[in-house]
Amino acid sequence: MSDRRTVAPHLRVKREPHRGAYDRETIDAILDEALLCHLGFQVEGRPTVIPTLHARVGDRLYVHGSAASRMLRHAASGMPMCATVTLFDGLVLARSVFNHSVNYRSVVVFGTATLVDDAEKREALRALTEQLAPGRWDEARQPTAKELKATSILSLPLDEASAKVRTGAEEDEPEDLDLPVWAGVVPVHLAAEPSEYEWRRVHDGRVGAP
Amino acid sequence: MSDRRTVAPHLRVKREPHRGAYDRETIDAILDEALLCHLGFQVEGRPTVIPTLHARVGDRLYVHGSAASRMLRHAASGMPMCATVTLFDGLVLARSVFNHSVNYRSVVVFGTATLVDDAEKREALRALTEQLAPGRWDEARQPTAKELKATSILSLPLDEASAKVRTGAEEDEPEDLDLPVWAGVVPVHLAAEPSEYEWRRVHDGRVGAP
Repeated sequence: MSDRRTVAPHLRVKREPHRGAYDRETIDAILDEALLCHLGFQVEGRPTVIPTLHARVGDRLYVHGSAASRMLRHAASGMPMCATVTLFDGLVLARSVFNHSVNYRSVVVFGTATLVDDAEKREALRALTEQLAPGRWDEARQPTAKELKATSILSLPLDEASAKVRTGAEEDEPEDLDLPVWAGVVPVHLAAEPSEYEWRRVHDGRVGAP
Repeated sequence: MSDRRTVAPHLRVKREPHRGAYDRETIDAILDEALLCHLGFQVEGRPTVIPTLHARVGDRLYVHGSAASRMLRHAASGMPMCATVTLFDGLVLARSVFNHSVNYRSVVVFGTATLVDDAEKREALRALTEQLAPGRWDEARQPTAKELKATSILSLPLDEASAKVRTGAEEDEPEDLDLPVWAGVVPVHLAAEPSEYEWRRVHDGRVGAP
């Protein structure tokens, strides 16, 4: 699945195909870094997209599925879904409006989601918790059987996934290069403010100083 | 559209309904702050979600529609779509894993998207550019007729939109309050690194010092 020519047509990046990537290393790195995922599914004829949390374990993507679980329980054999994860890396300011862009890394996963069963649910919830705050599963009180029962987690296989990545500088038309317009990339990232939580963990020697 | 009881069923926030908001003030503020939107539509029976850029002008949401425009051109009367915008505001670390959450503000817009025509396209592209970097439309070279022709922008009305917002502290079970587990919120935000671009604008008096 690492070559555009060998992947299924619906997985191929069509616009700006040179930005497509199909290898699991690229795909996994994006899924593992992002804190947020957008889950798409059809509800009564309407495309519906909801934000939720995700975590990858091996070849599966787990998504917190409360909003979709009610529908899923009524579907006989799972529901076609799409989980999309996007990391926003920068504003790309070119000399022309037309060549403005953004740097980003995104992954689109297509597949049929299934509800995670009780046997798998604890490990899936551990992965979701660790994705949000590494180390937190062992720090916090772990779920009771009743709490696990009240948690809905969906599982999507990663065999229909592709990535799209834009990196690097702005790309201007040759005739625009002498225009008196500043051009360049403004890097952007999701930043956590230093918190009492982080400092406690440093104090306890669990993580290095931020 | 400001009351849960009066909105259409598909717009009502079902899970954690107290977090739903249906007033345009809340919805517009979220759309206007976010840099990124996730667009959902059905392609050959598959839900598909792609990240793209958006901007609101009055009662319309414009989305950069290159990836969807080819399909849209083949649809007789527009395509049902869903545009979802999410601002990630914080990690909510409770004393139990089960009560972990995130603070966020999201908007879901349902509707039938139409391709923006030539007359409207310049203003829509201006809004998309200004959403990314305020002031940039007047700084950069504006689009030629040929560039405008090569740009696809979709328009969604805002009359089927709802917001969902979680703010504030963690919510623990009373019996967990004495556990020796740190609990609290770690604020998170999308941060732009100080750049030459920003400092030039400060120097030119166009914006205040960051």
